[in-house]
Amino acid sequence: MPRPPVPELVRRARAGDRGAVAKLISTVEAGGPAALEAAAALYPHTGRAYTIGVTGAPGAGKSTLVDALIGCIRASGDEVGVLAVDPTSPFSGGAILGDRVRMQDHALDPGVSIRSMATRGHLGGLALATPQAVRVLDAAGKRWVLVETVGVGQVEVEVAGAADTTVVVVNPGWGDGVQANKAGLMEIADVFVVNKADRAGLDETVRDLNLMLDLSGERAWRPPIVPTVAVRGEGIPELWAAITDHRAHLEATGELERRRLERLRREVRTIVTARLAEQAETVCSGERFERLVGAVAARTRDPYAAADELLAELGAGAGACCGPGPSDPAADPGLASPR
Amino acid sequence: MPRPPVPELVRRARAGDRGAVAKLISTVEAGGPAALEAAAALYPHTGRAYTIGVTGAPGAGKSTLVDALIGCIRASGDEVGVLAVDPTSPFSGGAILGDRVRMQDHALDPGVSIRSMATRGHLGGLALATPQAVRVLDAAGKRWVLVETVGVGQVEVEVAGAADTTVVVVNPGWGDGVQANKAGLMEIADVFVVNKADRAGLDETVRDLNLMLDLSGERAWRPPIVPTVAVRGEGIPELWAAITDHRAHLEATGELERRRLERLRREVRTIVTARLAEQAETVCSGERFERLVGAVAARTRDPYAAADELLAELGAGAGACCGPGPSDPAADPGLASPR
Repeated sequence: MPRPPVPELVRRARAGDRGAVAKLISTVEAGGPAALEAAAALYPHTGRAYTIGVTGAPGAGKSTLVDALIGCIRASGDEVGVLAVDPTSPFSGGAILGDRVRMQDHALDPGVSIRSMATRGHLGGLALATPQAVRVLDAAGKRWVLVETVGVGQVEVEVAGAADTTVVVVNPGWGDGVQANKAGLMEIADVFVVNKADRAGLDETVRDLNLMLDLSGERAWRPPIVPTVAVRGEGIPELWAAITDHRAHLEATGELERRRLERLRREVRTIVTARLAEQAETVCSGERFERLVGAVAARTRDPYAAADELLAELGAGAGACCGPGPSDPAADPGLASPR
Repeated sequence: MPRPPVPELVRRARAGDRGAVAKLISTVEAGGPAALEAAAALYPHTGRAYTIGVTGAPGAGKSTLVDALIGCIRASGDEVGVLAVDPTSPFSGGAILGDRVRMQDHALDPGVSIRSMATRGHLGGLALATPQAVRVLDAAGKRWVLVETVGVGQVEVEVAGAADTTVVVVNPGWGDGVQANKAGLMEIADVFVVNKADRAGLDETVRDLNLMLDLSGERAWRPPIVPTVAVRGEGIPELWAAITDHRAHLEATGELERRRLERLRREVRTIVTARLAEQAETVCSGERFERLVGAVAARTRDPYAAADELLAELGAGAGACCGPGPSDPAADPGLASPR
């Protein structure tokens, strides 16, 4: 079945067609000219969704918490979109969903869209694909978008942290042992959840988090620490209150606008960098490149002069020639291995 | 005292003036237009030096081994240059030399040039500065250049591995415990030295290295494993024989030329990538960038259209406008932090 044209998909998605929403998310995730077309068509219809990032180690209970938050949002009458982002998975469009049995309460609710995402060739990877997918849900009228990331590595933290409010989920005993990226999580957290709070070590974990917050200096917003037992719904009203308090704080102080502007700054910069990296890959391959390297070997050019000639080749076409490519340009191994 | 012009420095360096050699190495290390001028002026006079990389963990005895190799080379009548590269040091031009008391035997020998290097703003970092510094020594008539790197991180391995023959120095007991980057070292080694071979565990270490070499599959050259006690000069003739054997192998098989061509390919690619990254940084700052981001925030542009406009700005100037800048473009934090 051929995919309907992008403008039609956008029109249908805006009218609430969940199939069109799913197809558009797959489109922006896959990259290529259709993704660019979708980006341009969707963008004017966006800017009303409030995004909540949820991150934490595998097994911390993120999906159960997201499920509970869906309930809070639906109770208010608003529609909600959920993106489950797994940077480590080569699959998408349903791969994670198989595990998300707890969300099936909401699967038939037309006010809820749940999609999973992985990196699939999008220019700039998940850092660029995720905001695009959020925009699909935004244009489709979801007033809230939950972005759940699986894991606590740099990419996960980056993706989850690029939300209006970021919820970091830990468990009692979090302070023990080697903790990858604890500093990264401290930096992005607007709200801490200590889920599975009925387990031993809650008090110590809350104390440790408070200590770390004390050490991290004065801030206009001190992230509250909310104990929850998500499977029994305990602490969920408090969590929802913490999130809406944070939103009110951001809106009252003008910080929401500043944050969103900074995210756009970063996004545009990432697109520019990814495109130029792609161009570097293009000019540094093929016959002309080999001929120039041959001239360098023969010492009729020095390496810098050769690089200049390759860059001059980009010339006037630098801005115009480059659609997003099939692979992540950040993966260029040119600098990484010695031979 | 103002630095003499680059052409005069090159002329003097080629005539054997050690002060001019030192000034030129500082020049290429510092980057900027003078570095480019030096690159162009030096390059036609290069291509005769044979480079030996020496790497290994701190304390493995690299400096003592390098000192011994200087002796082997001087015994043959050839001149030798030594670069001590420390990626972690913000200092250069003598910082490491203070520690290199063992090399003082050679400090007054006019056939020996010893310089230390760190990253100091060179476009593309040490990966680009090191081959340029090697070329200074090459143009100055050093038929051998020893490149010693301090440490076994990725940069060290990359720099040391970009030599004609790479010597990896380990000690007995190397197989024990957590070993960072063992695979990287296995990949670049042409010769293994087990220095401090009078210590316990020599046989196990040799056995382990052989096992790893067995596992790494068939190769045209199997790196020999040479036990040494460098402080007493034991094993040095065998090490020198292993190095010259490897050189003979590379020359006889045509592999030397292939390797050097691949290094040039990588170098040109690195220059192109670094320049484009620099351009990305330039267009993604300043008033025009802020105006465009403002338009994106106001939704009169989408982020991809804004990026296109910035890239178009580079336009015809893409190849011509860009000298090396004051800072390492690889350090652009654009993708790294979430906000």
